[in-house]
Amino acid sequence: MTDDRLRVIGRVESSLTDRAAAPRQPDEGAPDAWLVFDDHYAPALDGLSPGTDALLLTWLDRADRDTLTVHPRGHTARPRAGVFATRSPDRPNPIGLHEIHILAIAGPRVHVRNLEALNATPILDLKPLLTPDR
Amino acid sequence: MTDDRLRVIGRVESSLTDRAAAPRQPDEGAPDAWLVFDDHYAPALDGLSPGTDALLLTWLDRADRDTLTVHPRGHTARPRAGVFATRSPDRPNPIGLHEIHILAIAGPRVHVRNLEALNATPILDLKPLLTPDR
Repeated sequence: MTDDRLRVIGRVESSLTDRAAAPRQPDEGAPDAWLVFDDHYAPALDGLSPGTDALLLTWLDRADRDTLTVHPRGHTARPRAGVFATRSPDRPNPIGLHEIHILAIAGPRVHVRNLEALNATPILDLKPLLTPDR
Repeated sequence: MTDDRLRVIGRVESSLTDRAAAPRQPDEGAPDAWLVFDDHYAPALDGLSPGTDALLLTWLDRADRDTLTVHPRGHTARPRAGVFATRSPDRPNPIGLHEIHILAIAGPRVHVRNLEALNATPILDLKPLLTPDR
């Protein structure tokens, strides 16, 4: 693989700053947040609009990449499971996958509902939910 | 971001070898395939079983990372759209996202149904479909 370096194309702007306090899933109290793309990537947002559901991919830069098994959701009473059977942020390639709902778009800034990513989390990609037409 | 280098944790083993001939979506005729993980990562598969649906993340290493807009699905008659509004493999971070169904697991090899990834595509991650319990 000759070009395997990730490009940080933007950052999350959120009131969430503490991993320990962050909700594990968006329906557990995550706040609205902004996706702030670098100006260079603004043309790549063309065609998205408020009301759209999409998938946000982030780089969970505070994760431990050498973890292979975890107690699901941190409950030590539960048996360990392989990280690929869990959504633990600790995994070899800590790519966060977030289903988002777009509230507004202002240039390279995208306002989204209920995002469980921490402030300043690097953004890697944004994809529409799968439809045959795209 | 101090550690932004992807780790190739395995490869796809598939009869698909030609990007031009590859189906764009799994329901368009993709063959069954094997996910072949490096032995080191076998413990991370613990807890997955045949019959499970999961999300596979790959690195689309033949993509053009400098493309910001495309004609959706390559139809030049359609107006260009930003790549974040499409599922084009050409995008700044060409991370492939594939919904898979696990048919069998044999050590570090996972047999899956209808995978539209090309042979030898690098594997980045495997996640369960989101459930509150994981």
